[in-house]
Amino acid sequence: MKTRAAVAFEAKRPLEIVEVDLEGPRAGEVLVEIKATGICHTDAYTLDGLDSEGIFPSILGHEGAGVVVEVGPGVTSVEVGDHVIPLYTPECRQCKSCLSRKTNLCTAIRATQGKGLMPDGSSRFSYKGQAIAHYMGCSTFSNFTVLPEIALAKIRKDAPFDKACYVGCGVTTGVGAVVNTAKVEPGANCVVFGLGGIGLNVIQGLKMVGADMIVGVDINGDKEEWGRRFGMTHFVNPKNVSDVVAHLVELTGGGADYTFDCTGNTVVMRQALEACHRGWGESIVIGVAEAGKEIATRPFQLVTGRVWRGSAFGGARGRTDTPKIVDWYMDGKIEIDPMITHTLPLERINEAFDLMHEGKSIRSVVVF
Amino acid sequence: MKTRAAVAFEAKRPLEIVEVDLEGPRAGEVLVEIKATGICHTDAYTLDGLDSEGIFPSILGHEGAGVVVEVGPGVTSVEVGDHVIPLYTPECRQCKSCLSRKTNLCTAIRATQGKGLMPDGSSRFSYKGQAIAHYMGCSTFSNFTVLPEIALAKIRKDAPFDKACYVGCGVTTGVGAVVNTAKVEPGANCVVFGLGGIGLNVIQGLKMVGADMIVGVDINGDKEEWGRRFGMTHFVNPKNVSDVVAHLVELTGGGADYTFDCTGNTVVMRQALEACHRGWGESIVIGVAEAGKEIATRPFQLVTGRVWRGSAFGGARGRTDTPKIVDWYMDGKIEIDPMITHTLPLERINEAFDLMHEGKSIRSVVVF
Repeated sequence: MKTRAAVAFEAKRPLEIVEVDLEGPRAGEVLVEIKATGICHTDAYTLDGLDSEGIFPSILGHEGAGVVVEVGPGVTSVEVGDHVIPLYTPECRQCKSCLSRKTNLCTAIRATQGKGLMPDGSSRFSYKGQAIAHYMGCSTFSNFTVLPEIALAKIRKDAPFDKACYVGCGVTTGVGAVVNTAKVEPGANCVVFGLGGIGLNVIQGLKMVGADMIVGVDINGDKEEWGRRFGMTHFVNPKNVSDVVAHLVELTGGGADYTFDCTGNTVVMRQALEACHRGWGESIVIGVAEAGKEIATRPFQLVTGRVWRGSAFGGARGRTDTPKIVDWYMDGKIEIDPMITHTLPLERINEAFDLMHEGKSIRSVVVF
Repeated sequence: MKTRAAVAFEAKRPLEIVEVDLEGPRAGEVLVEIKATGICHTDAYTLDGLDSEGIFPSILGHEGAGVVVEVGPGVTSVEVGDHVIPLYTPECRQCKSCLSRKTNLCTAIRATQGKGLMPDGSSRFSYKGQAIAHYMGCSTFSNFTVLPEIALAKIRKDAPFDKACYVGCGVTTGVGAVVNTAKVEPGANCVVFGLGGIGLNVIQGLKMVGADMIVGVDINGDKEEWGRRFGMTHFVNPKNVSDVVAHLVELTGGGADYTFDCTGNTVVMRQALEACHRGWGESIVIGVAEAGKEIATRPFQLVTGRVWRGSAFGGARGRTDTPKIVDWYMDGKIEIDPMITHTLPLERINEAFDLMHEGKSIRSVVVF
């Protein structure tokens, strides 16, 4: 079949909207009509050529929502008409990782996904006879896409696509880091570094679980209003204090119970660790750092009780936890609507990248 | 009163055995006759002048066992004749740290202890009229010493002093890191870096809790026999493999569930983290690094599920947990006797430091 898609033909060039060829689903695969997709920093990271493992040409996009239109042989967990969120972190429920009960990082199809291929080692996309790579196992910048069954979360049908898509990455990454990774308890004092699309979701996750202090840190003072909108109780602009770590330790009465880095900046990651309370403070790295950058601290920080951990896709098991987060949205426990600052047709997808680079959007969503 | 003590008059000089003056216990304090004391690397670290906060003259020693001979006003938890282990990590059960239920690092007397003083800001020791500092709140290199009540663990009377003293630091630090900090579960695959007095106790802690693989790593091949003696199942000498991290990841089938650094070497600490299993492996820093040294890694290591934490005094609450570890020894769940390689009188205490520096002892104990 043919489908409209925004194709990344090479790095550092705008996406091109073209009609590509899409093969139907093979065994264990599902054809999905994407109804909406968010544009995330990770897409830009790859498009800008910063990811040394980036593959071109490819169809980017990993934050979508849509409807099942055809299932391949052997597919049992979804059927035609189901509403689904594509998962860049699948959940096979059979591999060592899934069975460990300790991580959400399913490894069932990791090797082929990293190469831009379906699990059988081939691509379903092509353009003028040339194969086009899948991206993060999702490729939601295409109106139709094929995914493995284990990479689809079935969600309720009354959730609007243009909001539910954000659960496919940003919302789950932020809220999940609070709920699944840090397991923040009511009354905790917390600090969130970076008030972008992830940081705001960390903030609303903290509000949902009953944190006491929710301190937001950002060098852009305009973000204060955004933070307070979602539950932030205190705002610190590092430009206005001489020593941000000392300031945060004092503000939180000895250091935070939990801190979250949503910046991807390794200097900030260190500050986030060192702003933790002696004895038990935990710092969660969410942001993706530039290739080659390293984090560092004195080991004394750990020996005296601070814990350094990370979170990918909010520690959420894709098929099990993502539908719950959609429920939380529909039940009003968390918000999504105000974070979707821009909604555009596919033809204007490059504008969404511009808005993000210019810091003008929290989240832009493309609707098909 | 007068008491014999080994005094560190200045850094980098042998201890001198002299008779010092000791004031009796004040309110909340206890006079203890030390019967035996271990010699630990931390004592040497201070004596060698490597601790920038080291104070001289002082009476070192923090790994002792003895008998209560006098209690000051208001003391209720111990009485004359009780057998006790002095605690460099006290347990007041009243401070924010103790009440957090998340850490063993009681802060009740931290400020004065760090200055070599009793909680009221004075020293009980003097020599020829000059005050001599306490050390780590213990000063077990003195036949008699005064401690705060909250820094004494009451232990059973049938435990031999010359073995129980080791529970005051080394045994608890190693076994406790397994039991309290990492909370290792049966069947786990673990790697222990550094097979000295701490590493061997980590190994026997892992054996006690039912770990599957217990891999020991040391650049000294002679340590293999020691490791196997306490439950080590595999030995790796980094000198014999090209890439120790890759070797360990392969040996453990994808990385260790838990790794322990018992070297104090920041390069090894990084290896210990990176030898952890993707998704859930936790690395515990136990060793004390040289002043100014830092640990580093790529944040990707954390984002993909590895956790970096530290352990001080094995995460053990001094008064609550230390007596249990003495019980485990008396019940035969852990061993101490074969680790006490040398027992010496106080007059030969400097030989114990030599044995340690030469790598000839696992633990030397001085008996009074």
